[in-house]
Amino acid sequence: MSAKIRLYVEHPLGAGQSIPLEKEQAHYLFGVMRQRLGGAVALFNGFDGEWQAEVTEAGKRGGTLTCVAQSKTLQMPPDLWLIFAPIKKARTDFIVEKAAEMGAARILPVGTDYTNSERIRQDRLQAHAVEAAEQCGGTYVPEVCDLQKLSQLLDHWPDERQLMFCDEAEVGQRRFLEVARGSAGPEGGREAPALGGGTGADRSASEPFGKLSLQPWAILIGPEGGFSDKERKRLHAMAQAHVVSLGPRILRADTAAVAAMTLWQQTLGDW
Amino acid sequence: MSAKIRLYVEHPLGAGQSIPLEKEQAHYLFGVMRQRLGGAVALFNGFDGEWQAEVTEAGKRGGTLTCVAQSKTLQMPPDLWLIFAPIKKARTDFIVEKAAEMGAARILPVGTDYTNSERIRQDRLQAHAVEAAEQCGGTYVPEVCDLQKLSQLLDHWPDERQLMFCDEAEVGQRRFLEVARGSAGPEGGREAPALGGGTGADRSASEPFGKLSLQPWAILIGPEGGFSDKERKRLHAMAQAHVVSLGPRILRADTAAVAAMTLWQQTLGDW
Repeated sequence: MSAKIRLYVEHPLGAGQSIPLEKEQAHYLFGVMRQRLGGAVALFNGFDGEWQAEVTEAGKRGGTLTCVAQSKTLQMPPDLWLIFAPIKKARTDFIVEKAAEMGAARILPVGTDYTNSERIRQDRLQAHAVEAAEQCGGTYVPEVCDLQKLSQLLDHWPDERQLMFCDEAEVGQRRFLEVARGSAGPEGGREAPALGGGTGADRSASEPFGKLSLQPWAILIGPEGGFSDKERKRLHAMAQAHVVSLGPRILRADTAAVAAMTLWQQTLGDW
Repeated sequence: MSAKIRLYVEHPLGAGQSIPLEKEQAHYLFGVMRQRLGGAVALFNGFDGEWQAEVTEAGKRGGTLTCVAQSKTLQMPPDLWLIFAPIKKARTDFIVEKAAEMGAARILPVGTDYTNSERIRQDRLQAHAVEAAEQCGGTYVPEVCDLQKLSQLLDHWPDERQLMFCDEAEVGQRRFLEVARGSAGPEGGREAPALGGGTGADRSASEPFGKLSLQPWAILIGPEGGFSDKERKRLHAMAQAHVVSLGPRILRADTAAVAAMTLWQQTLGDW
């Protein structure tokens, strides 16, 4: 049976490997979770998959876990960035948590023309991402970057990274499925198999997303105050940008982040 | 120009119609939002669409708005229920807010075998749904039902209502797109058009979802403690149930609610 407690550690994992616990981890395991010698804990470090480990030393200020057997291989998320403009603390926390659960590889808070250059606590947000990864059974923790200006991020935008750009001004206009298909280019021109009998169960495997499915992507969630005209013009002019609608209602930033990642994961990602 | 302030009122709306304000609404409009005589407010009541109105009387304890012109017709959401097991207060509030934004018609909190029969404040949750509808530009407020037992809800389950059942035990197994296609029955057996050139922009219009797209639906989000074996067996035995996976990671209930509604809205709903 696999352990119910999952811990992220910054230490190599492997058969027989001992992992020293830091004070906080020991407090959590032995104080809060009441683990004792022989107790089972699942560990992951973002590199070596998930390992079942046993408590082999328990103290007030430390302890040791020993790896027993690997329970999951490393599952890297697809190369997807989530870019968003932080506003209120609680919603920013939620967006980071959701991005980790939904399988973003990197989380990038940005300042935009209409958001005050609100400070963020990068270390606190990173801790949220760790907690979400522990909770959701993932074997990878997305990196939370420091706050940067959207304009600077776009100044150094990588050529091949596609951008799903959720623009409130496009409410109800363009569905992601059609965007991913319609922009697929010549490589996407394979003929789809004819469907009969209403089964079509593996049709998705042959959907003509072409090269878009092989490229790195980013999702940009509009700030609650909207983009400025200058920002909107610049984004629309980018060759990598794909404007996508998230339905007829205006979604809050945290709702939009989950909805956009769902569309992406279902269409091009690991769902 | 349309008003930035949107208010839900329980009063008929129409050209020249006067709407008396309650004390709380007057406080919000004149105290908090600093509106004065002649100020613009958008109104909706769940029946008459959205109307632009003008402040024609302003006082400390009341006031009057007068409808000028209709700015949106009524947009009813698709007949989709969201069923979930409330746990912590903040996450329950979020789920109700998200369900309103995402376009659920009705929100049903349920007690399950593994959730304590936590009380809910139906009136508070309904107020959250109103606020979310005001915020997202919708013209409809979903009804929040009182807490009931899942087993009782299933005892009286309507024959024709399909159920999208998000089971953590099915992590990474069944994608909603295939579920909606594969279960479409004989009516769903139309032949899909062959796709060429990678455009296929209106292919979605002919996707063979058949009768499933014409029926009422419900989404059931698993409680954080999971379903009991008894519940799982009963759900799997229902003719209306369609088990759906939400990807390889385990999502929290509020994340799962948004992700499931996104899949449904994109495939069968109003996106």
